[in-house]
Amino acid sequence: MNKPCLAKGTRDFGPEEMNKRKFIFSTIEKIFKNYAFEAIETPALENIETLTGKYGDEGDTLLFRILDSGDYLKTWKEKNLLDANSSELTPHIASRGLRYDLTVPFARFVAMNRHRISIPFRRYQMQPVWRADRPQKGRYREFWQLDADIIGSESLMNEADLMNIFHNAFNGLGIDKYQIHINNRKVLEGVADVLGAKESFSTLTVALDKFDKIGWEGVQNELLQKGFSNQQCDLLKPFLQSAPLSFEILAKWKAMLQVSPTGIKGIEELEDLCNYLFASDGLHHIHFDGTLARGLSYYTGCIFEVKVLDSGMGSIAAGGRYDNLTGIFGMPGLSGVGISFGADRIYDLMEAQNLFPSEITASKKILFCPLEEKSIAFCLQAAKILRENAIPCLVYPGAVKIKKQLDFANAIYAKYAVLVGENEINAGILSLKNLESGAQKSISIDDLIKELKHDF
Amino acid sequence: MNKPCLAKGTRDFGPEEMNKRKFIFSTIEKIFKNYAFEAIETPALENIETLTGKYGDEGDTLLFRILDSGDYLKTWKEKNLLDANSSELTPHIASRGLRYDLTVPFARFVAMNRHRISIPFRRYQMQPVWRADRPQKGRYREFWQLDADIIGSESLMNEADLMNIFHNAFNGLGIDKYQIHINNRKVLEGVADVLGAKESFSTLTVALDKFDKIGWEGVQNELLQKGFSNQQCDLLKPFLQSAPLSFEILAKWKAMLQVSPTGIKGIEELEDLCNYLFASDGLHHIHFDGTLARGLSYYTGCIFEVKVLDSGMGSIAAGGRYDNLTGIFGMPGLSGVGISFGADRIYDLMEAQNLFPSEITASKKILFCPLEEKSIAFCLQAAKILRENAIPCLVYPGAVKIKKQLDFANAIYAKYAVLVGENEINAGILSLKNLESGAQKSISIDDLIKELKHDF
Repeated sequence: MNKPCLAKGTRDFGPEEMNKRKFIFSTIEKIFKNYAFEAIETPALENIETLTGKYGDEGDTLLFRILDSGDYLKTWKEKNLLDANSSELTPHIASRGLRYDLTVPFARFVAMNRHRISIPFRRYQMQPVWRADRPQKGRYREFWQLDADIIGSESLMNEADLMNIFHNAFNGLGIDKYQIHINNRKVLEGVADVLGAKESFSTLTVALDKFDKIGWEGVQNELLQKGFSNQQCDLLKPFLQSAPLSFEILAKWKAMLQVSPTGIKGIEELEDLCNYLFASDGLHHIHFDGTLARGLSYYTGCIFEVKVLDSGMGSIAAGGRYDNLTGIFGMPGLSGVGISFGADRIYDLMEAQNLFPSEITASKKILFCPLEEKSIAFCLQAAKILRENAIPCLVYPGAVKIKKQLDFANAIYAKYAVLVGENEINAGILSLKNLESGAQKSISIDDLIKELKHDF
Repeated sequence: MNKPCLAKGTRDFGPEEMNKRKFIFSTIEKIFKNYAFEAIETPALENIETLTGKYGDEGDTLLFRILDSGDYLKTWKEKNLLDANSSELTPHIASRGLRYDLTVPFARFVAMNRHRISIPFRRYQMQPVWRADRPQKGRYREFWQLDADIIGSESLMNEADLMNIFHNAFNGLGIDKYQIHINNRKVLEGVADVLGAKESFSTLTVALDKFDKIGWEGVQNELLQKGFSNQQCDLLKPFLQSAPLSFEILAKWKAMLQVSPTGIKGIEELEDLCNYLFASDGLHHIHFDGTLARGLSYYTGCIFEVKVLDSGMGSIAAGGRYDNLTGIFGMPGLSGVGISFGADRIYDLMEAQNLFPSEITASKKILFCPLEEKSIAFCLQAAKILRENAIPCLVYPGAVKIKKQLDFANAIYAKYAVLVGENEINAGILSLKNLESGAQKSISIDDLIKELKHDF
């Protein structure tokens, strides 16, 4: 094998990309901790029954499945293998799959650890997920979700905390043109009630979900095709609006939804949220958006999606409330709400808009350059002392030509080179070369440590 | 589905386990950075050709393979499917697999990114790997490797750096009864030369690898069975010894290996290493071990394994030098050396020996307890101010009975509870309850921040 390549839709991350990714991950992790969320991790591999049936039919086809070990055809062979098709065979030969999101494994975790956790449970989880999707710009087969969920409390205070986490995170990352779109599945049900289309709720939400891409015309055409009447479409139109979240807009919608107790309940939840956001100075960058529907069927209350203006990019974070996700795993009656940051989209956005702070692109370090073989022991000893003072450094592995060593120092973005030859050893003094300015000076190791300690 | 369970050999990590794991990961990551290693990450999924043939026959059977999407039986059906067996079918329906270690993906990364990296390249990588092994105590199907490798330099200074990383890491983790066993594949070749068994080198190393478990008798029996003579076994016996690494023991071995130029070369490499370790105060906890062979066939120079006395556990870290791993991927001539910490074994060891510092087991936080509904807005505002001062906190989501709120505070190991009722709001003063001592006092929010800032 001579030309290795990456599996389609996956990526390597080199040192520079890692520094930038760590900036995103650590900024958001600090905020999760600041809101008293606790870390958990779940395995990449789950039994396939844990995953199937949770993400809709499309989700099931996008699961990566693990081939069973051993002679997996053994039992199958007795049936007529020649008549078999792949989708029939799959469940018999692949009993595990890769994690598709972090919410379903979290629900499984809660159901399995009910006696170990305290309700309401606030957890964060920052791990990759895998989907066998067609790779394209901004869409990968392995990508990272940074999730925070609160389970076991119905209070809208939880939604308010999550919105404030959005604010803190985007401020921390330097993303200022974000808009948090918010709606409520009960409000959508109320709209269906107004239209007299309760039975066609999922048809309605599927069409609304496309509003961004196909506009009102497109949504209307789809609904008419699926059996909605012109009159129903006329009734729907006033609900397809977006405006900054405020008590005023909610009052207006409450009037529009007065025939639907469920719709009113949805608006009241948003009023609660509005109150809590007002109390915590979080009522900004938030748009109440009647067109927001969210594909995942497990949502039952507030739903969110964060977009960045002029980014030409889909949502960079999303979430919502789900009332019965642990119920699937035998633990009913726990309402949860959560958000998920798409780390890879955030990375791509920050890269495109040049938002990464310049100081994070290279990790600081010092290169010791032995000018002759017998300087090496001295360099090793000096490097040891620097490291004891938490100053990252390395010794060039061999007394090769100084030009080559300095080229290497520049290539690895070392901040300083320390030249060590016979003179330096005899005088017990180092020659310190600043690789940015080119300036060189003599310095004792003690003074070097003093000078660098605040730098590193 | 009512009783969810984990895929065999995998684990969830709850908050307490995560805090302990983070202690291990961050301790070792800080040391990697201190030695000027740069982070990279590679994908969990690799094309199967990247993985197969690198880990021996047993390794190939332990690979987790991903079932292809779509109608994978389509082309296969035209052949006689009834005659097919699983191992024949597998390559046709599973073109990707899960990462088995971090070294092979790293070699692939280097070959694919040769123009972006500076040689010698020092990288660290901390990611999970997957093996379809039979799960047992201390052996998982998903486990974490924390690797540091230097590629593109033959100097034994690199080995010395890695041994010093071992020292720093085990000191940092509080593991003091560690022994670094060290040998050299060239020394083993030299031993084969002395025995006149050059052709049976791999038979010899496979037998030696079991010395720990089956002892001299067992090794001898295996060798006799495989065609070695009694005389050869007699010649072998003096080499099966272990002693603290020193110039003296190396001199002794040099004499014993004088018939083998390769063996002498191996000893000279160890002498170099000894010199560099001596210069950097790293010549301790290291045992030259003639029985150490290391299974992976890609090793060509020094090899290492770290054991902990009285732990009843296999090695917790290991590594070695490989001369042609990037050659497999079309980039010959690069020698590399690396080490790998087994994070899960280290965790199990530290747990068994009670080595985790007590302060890391719970993350610090404060719970605001609203005594009535109208206190909530005040709590949210106060929580916001604390978070702005990097003091992690949360507000109990609802003004339920104070007993219930305080029980929750204890359950989540909150350090303080802040009680907020009408009196507190009117006076603009908080009631702070220390949950360890039970002491309660009144305090202004400014004084609270001053008091807690050094605590968090």
